[in-house]
Amino acid sequence: MRRWNGWGDDQFSLELPEQGQSFLSERIGAATPLQDTTLASVCASVPESRLPADASVDDLIDRTPETRVRHARGQSLADWLAMRSGEIGEFPDGVAFPKTNTDVRTLLHFAQEQDVHLIPYGGGTSVAGHINPVDQGKPVLTVSLASLNRMIDLDRESQVATFGAGTPGPLVESQLRAQGYTLGHFPQSFELSTIGGWVASRSSGQQSLRYGRIEQLFAGGRIETLQGTLNLPTIPASSAGPDIREMILGSEGRLGMITEVKARVSQLPEQESFHVVFFPNWNDARTAARRLVQNRVQLSMLRLSNAIETETQLALAGHPRLIGLLERFLAFRGADEGKCMMTFGVTGTRPQCRAALAEARKICASQQGVYTGTKLGAKWAEKRFTMPYLREALWHMGYAVDTLETATDWDNVDNLLNSMETNLREGLADRNERTHVFTHLSHFYGQGCSIYTTYVFRVADTYEETLSRWQHLKNTTSELIVQNRGTISHQHGVGKDHAPFLPVEKGELGMRAIRSLTDSFDPDQRLNPKTLLD
Amino acid sequence: MRRWNGWGDDQFSLELPEQGQSFLSERIGAATPLQDTTLASVCASVPESRLPADASVDDLIDRTPETRVRHARGQSLADWLAMRSGEIGEFPDGVAFPKTNTDVRTLLHFAQEQDVHLIPYGGGTSVAGHINPVDQGKPVLTVSLASLNRMIDLDRESQVATFGAGTPGPLVESQLRAQGYTLGHFPQSFELSTIGGWVASRSSGQQSLRYGRIEQLFAGGRIETLQGTLNLPTIPASSAGPDIREMILGSEGRLGMITEVKARVSQLPEQESFHVVFFPNWNDARTAARRLVQNRVQLSMLRLSNAIETETQLALAGHPRLIGLLERFLAFRGADEGKCMMTFGVTGTRPQCRAALAEARKICASQQGVYTGTKLGAKWAEKRFTMPYLREALWHMGYAVDTLETATDWDNVDNLLNSMETNLREGLADRNERTHVFTHLSHFYGQGCSIYTTYVFRVADTYEETLSRWQHLKNTTSELIVQNRGTISHQHGVGKDHAPFLPVEKGELGMRAIRSLTDSFDPDQRLNPKTLLD
Repeated sequence: MRRWNGWGDDQFSLELPEQGQSFLSERIGAATPLQDTTLASVCASVPESRLPADASVDDLIDRTPETRVRHARGQSLADWLAMRSGEIGEFPDGVAFPKTNTDVRTLLHFAQEQDVHLIPYGGGTSVAGHINPVDQGKPVLTVSLASLNRMIDLDRESQVATFGAGTPGPLVESQLRAQGYTLGHFPQSFELSTIGGWVASRSSGQQSLRYGRIEQLFAGGRIETLQGTLNLPTIPASSAGPDIREMILGSEGRLGMITEVKARVSQLPEQESFHVVFFPNWNDARTAARRLVQNRVQLSMLRLSNAIETETQLALAGHPRLIGLLERFLAFRGADEGKCMMTFGVTGTRPQCRAALAEARKICASQQGVYTGTKLGAKWAEKRFTMPYLREALWHMGYAVDTLETATDWDNVDNLLNSMETNLREGLADRNERTHVFTHLSHFYGQGCSIYTTYVFRVADTYEETLSRWQHLKNTTSELIVQNRGTISHQHGVGKDHAPFLPVEKGELGMRAIRSLTDSFDPDQRLNPKTLLD
Repeated sequence: MRRWNGWGDDQFSLELPEQGQSFLSERIGAATPLQDTTLASVCASVPESRLPADASVDDLIDRTPETRVRHARGQSLADWLAMRSGEIGEFPDGVAFPKTNTDVRTLLHFAQEQDVHLIPYGGGTSVAGHINPVDQGKPVLTVSLASLNRMIDLDRESQVATFGAGTPGPLVESQLRAQGYTLGHFPQSFELSTIGGWVASRSSGQQSLRYGRIEQLFAGGRIETLQGTLNLPTIPASSAGPDIREMILGSEGRLGMITEVKARVSQLPEQESFHVVFFPNWNDARTAARRLVQNRVQLSMLRLSNAIETETQLALAGHPRLIGLLERFLAFRGADEGKCMMTFGVTGTRPQCRAALAEARKICASQQGVYTGTKLGAKWAEKRFTMPYLREALWHMGYAVDTLETATDWDNVDNLLNSMETNLREGLADRNERTHVFTHLSHFYGQGCSIYTTYVFRVADTYEETLSRWQHLKNTTSELIVQNRGTISHQHGVGKDHAPFLPVEKGELGMRAIRSLTDSFDPDQRLNPKTLLD
């Protein structure tokens, strides 16, 4: 069953190998875990539902405490601390499970008539507070699109597939693969997040280099709004005025509820493999990555870990003897202290893969890269969605882990990366706490790339102080990002946590443009209030 | 000097070869040209300027009749007929030539204070009526951005170049090429159209397969609005809410005046070549094109002429003996009557070009394509921007020529193409006139492609009847396009001519979304009124 207070299926857990524990303990000290509360105790704390009875929707709504608890929070670290401590604050007053577009329209009508706020809910994997209710003095109904989880149509000629918006990653891929197709959208939240959620929050997947971001994959669909149904036709490209698709992408439920997504799919590739190269230093590694993408080498994924992430990953991987051998080999080839690991994928027809691999190896070699083949790449592919489970393992050891991500132009990558890492590393110094911080670049563009930084710190004696540590690190670094030419989010969206930082990025007139859309579609702010625009 | 009543430089003209003339005459009859009016006579008809005197802007504004005539119309066939007949209708009351962003802000302030309408003007190449003044009882000031024509900055590391919005294609490329870079945006209007105009109208270039549409090339920039300056920061990609860039793209001057464009550029490629393949029939040809793009073969351009366009191009090419030889060779290889010509480009590093060419040839061969090498492709490249000059030659022979374009999904391409051609071919039957109609596909996407249809008909005895013939063909085919899953424009924009057809495509709520933006930025509708939204 899905964990009520953390990530994924409770039948699956990861162990941190022994040397991983000692590595962290050396870096930031041994830790003592906090005590988690129980589901039963949280359920007992859930207040009465404020939702009015209404025969038109009562069949669709579950008001039981457990369901309300299970839909109250996402997966940000603040959400974890809330769920683990039991201090959840706001709960939805009920959770609706519409089975059809008509059900969704009925729920919107109900909200309008009964002055109820609605929160659309996909996989509940937001790490930015998208689906958390806020107290506005109105009843809140969370609308789970979980029942809209089928592939409705597949047009093989146009390679457009239509899905119910609540279809989660694995069901998107399994329904497509059965027909020889793939969407190719693999965010780390893939196991739980949904295709409608990807559109609503402008998601990006690990193989965006080949398949594109969700902006490129979203061909059209159906959005139920308080003003009626918005049908977005599928047209491959158009110069007919501003693109309405692009107003829905990233709208985070503020304009309406996405119920159907038409997505651009691809035939399953003939071949796919992932390769690992080590570079002796960051400068060569970063230059190689930039050259790969600016030369349009046909890769399907690219990820570049900085020296600390490389060291951390090797330490946490287990298999100390094998890793020791690898490190001696790399040292012999010139990649020793300070080495940086690059993982890249080649996907496509056999000739495409052959050509891309040859070009990639050549560019890497010219920047002193040491090619190590596909073994470590296969490991990456095998574990590509398991990182969130490690959070659970660390939690039980007394460590809190969170990530921060942005994107910026190439000329600013090092500056922003270093500022973010320094701010996180030194952020708890006045509380006499250390933070372990490491970063990778991924999602590469000719113009720049995303920066994805992970930080680990010890939980404090109390939940309150632990939350305060996190808030300090998160908020100061977020401010630093938007003040230094970074986007407040490359792939996690805005939600409630990033909303205060959005105006710096969009500017006053940019915010006005977004507000003119929400004012037009939802003048009374009934749909996911305080998300995106606070 | 630039032609006041037609396309391009008046020092350059194309002749239609003898067999081209007889080909057309056979198809739709011999024709008698209409008599053009003179520039002097049109200038004499220009009314007094209604612009109020205002010391803050008078230095920037040219009120002379000739300048007003030269900025009154674009390049649609209706514009041509207006200019050739002298029945131009509305003229701008003056043309401003701002030299700086501050000048543009001053002009906006003037418009607000003095109740003047503004029309932004780039290269004046619109074929959809974007820059034509309409009578709203208010003075109209056209704002030419021609003086903002320099590359302001080139960031080599991030590959982002900043241009004044009025920089025309040749100056974009020459300033970049001097530094080893290219934008790679080559619409057919390249010689005259500007980078700001490309953004405002969502343009697409002949090599969009490699470089992307202008949506992918536009990284950010500066827009002066009636509410203040909108600065769009350069960020490679973001999930931070709806993308403001995408609201400016295709805004056609309704939200503000684009003054600076930051564009994603590429290093000049190592290699580039264009290749021609003939297919024995449309079905194989279209299938090959679809397979090329759905298999992600790294081509830089792709164009597929249907049988009538192929025949027409070979007839109009001149060199009957050489073409005869080619046709005998093709017939011997199985591509005879009904054959279809495909042109494709490979661009990039040497290994990329080699791999792409090999894959493309293999796919073409498997659909019975006969590869003919790079001779015809080089001819295409040499003449890629000269087609509009042919219009001038045809005009002087008594033929009017226009194009219609759309894009649709693959499963609908044949249906829509045939409907469009049939409607155009039979559209003047009740006037006892024939139309010569031919089509190519270009701008290919996994999901579909653009359909670009050219039609030639004889001018009537009068301008009035000639315009009526055009209006009938244009309007009935435009209606047919939007009723049959096509966009009203893939690359020409909406302007005034396509505005009546936009609501079918966008839907009521889509139109409301666009209106909420224009209402917010320009509540009094002073900026380019009747364009985009009528």
